[in-house]
Amino acid sequence: MHVTSERRLDDGVRERTFTLDDAPGVPRTPGIPGILWTPASAAASAPAPLILQSPPPLGLRTAYPRLAARARHAAEDGFASATLELPGSGDRPRIPATEQAVADLRQALEAGRPVSDEIVDALVLPLVDRAVPEWQAALDALLTLPEIGGPVGYSGGVISIGTRLAVVEPRISAAVLFAGSFVPRAIFEEARQVTIPLHVLLQWDDEGNDRQAALNLFDAFGSAEKTLHANMGGHTGVPPFAADAAAQFFTRHLRARPAVMRG
Amino acid sequence: MHVTSERRLDDGVRERTFTLDDAPGVPRTPGIPGILWTPASAAASAPAPLILQSPPPLGLRTAYPRLAARARHAAEDGFASATLELPGSGDRPRIPATEQAVADLRQALEAGRPVSDEIVDALVLPLVDRAVPEWQAALDALLTLPEIGGPVGYSGGVISIGTRLAVVEPRISAAVLFAGSFVPRAIFEEARQVTIPLHVLLQWDDEGNDRQAALNLFDAFGSAEKTLHANMGGHTGVPPFAADAAAQFFTRHLRARPAVMRG
Repeated sequence: MHVTSERRLDDGVRERTFTLDDAPGVPRTPGIPGILWTPASAAASAPAPLILQSPPPLGLRTAYPRLAARARHAAEDGFASATLELPGSGDRPRIPATEQAVADLRQALEAGRPVSDEIVDALVLPLVDRAVPEWQAALDALLTLPEIGGPVGYSGGVISIGTRLAVVEPRISAAVLFAGSFVPRAIFEEARQVTIPLHVLLQWDDEGNDRQAALNLFDAFGSAEKTLHANMGGHTGVPPFAADAAAQFFTRHLRARPAVMRG
Repeated sequence: MHVTSERRLDDGVRERTFTLDDAPGVPRTPGIPGILWTPASAAASAPAPLILQSPPPLGLRTAYPRLAARARHAAEDGFASATLELPGSGDRPRIPATEQAVADLRQALEAGRPVSDEIVDALVLPLVDRAVPEWQAALDALLTLPEIGGPVGYSGGVISIGTRLAVVEPRISAAVLFAGSFVPRAIFEEARQVTIPLHVLLQWDDEGNDRQAALNLFDAFGSAEKTLHANMGGHTGVPPFAADAAAQFFTRHLRARPAVMRG
């Protein structure tokens, strides 16, 4: 990974933008943009546990305010955070299969037809197939930094990516997932193989979300410890106390030492 | 109310047992047994907000360990707690209509028949009708004590009682409710009238609980702020972190000043 800019935020958090190197055999010119936030206290002598803050598929530029707020909140609890542009988002090349699926989805919704399993598969699976190895490559690179240590948490905006990562990436110890619909059938099967502690956030009145599908997916996860926090409001209306609860979940499972004592 | 015993627990919490006086026109000989816990810091100069810790219908003797643990946890956050024997529980006279409904319920379950609305009504409504004015009378008495102040929270084991109280008792500002099935149709209608902040705990694998009915009731509550916390495990398996989250909910809404700073 190559650091492309660096600054200190007013709370002492160090923010670095970077691009992720091409992995062997997977050309990624001009590289994948990402951002790393580390608490002021993070050092080689006191490495910070890491939370992968996966964005919604809106592009990092659009998602930055929410991601930065989550990262600064996590830094108060002693965590480093990192995010990565998703395949097909921001300035990255579009995924042709996904573009077609988005068009098919719009057509189905406008015509009032149910969204078929085939559309959901085409919409989500190519994204998951591409994103998961990228997050693993990011993890490889980030864990070489002396100020970053384990354990690693995942907090993310596309629940299918989080589910696949939780199954295939043993370095991830706990995950906060945001319930969403359009979950491919294959991901339900993968969900049964998840065993790490999960904290799932559901916005009860999410206009773009099938509540029953979200509850079914929660039910499918194989984890012995899984908690669902359902709150009122739409997709972006997650209340501040829900963010606090998610932070406490990570503190409990990743055993970070707080950088700042909180009252 | 008459205090019948008093002791200090090892954490400084003052525990008093009491019996509630007869209310005008409602004979309650020999009185309703209850327990009051106040934090060491509670005084006329610093009255503690109160949480009504309503027991499950098992009798106070059986429920004591769980109730006392909740009360001592609440005392760490500066709250007083009080509980009251439910009508028909412990040494209180049985409610004939409820006894018959319990027999009908057993028969239906043993025969594999669905539990009818009539059985649910007979099982729950007489209990709610009797319990709610008793909790209101307890509130009248408790709020005369100089070391108890407002605001008042409710935390309870029979969700229909909590729902009715939240509608009819304006002194209750926030409630933690434990999802349970066997909710009469009339209570669903009352739930729509609830407007106070709610924190609902659901045990996902509760063997004595219809999950869909619990989700439907959560959906019915009229409150603008309502949160559902679903956790794994059976009826009595509420994990410790869920109790912490409920305590934080009360701290947020009842604005208690912590008696002890917690790390």
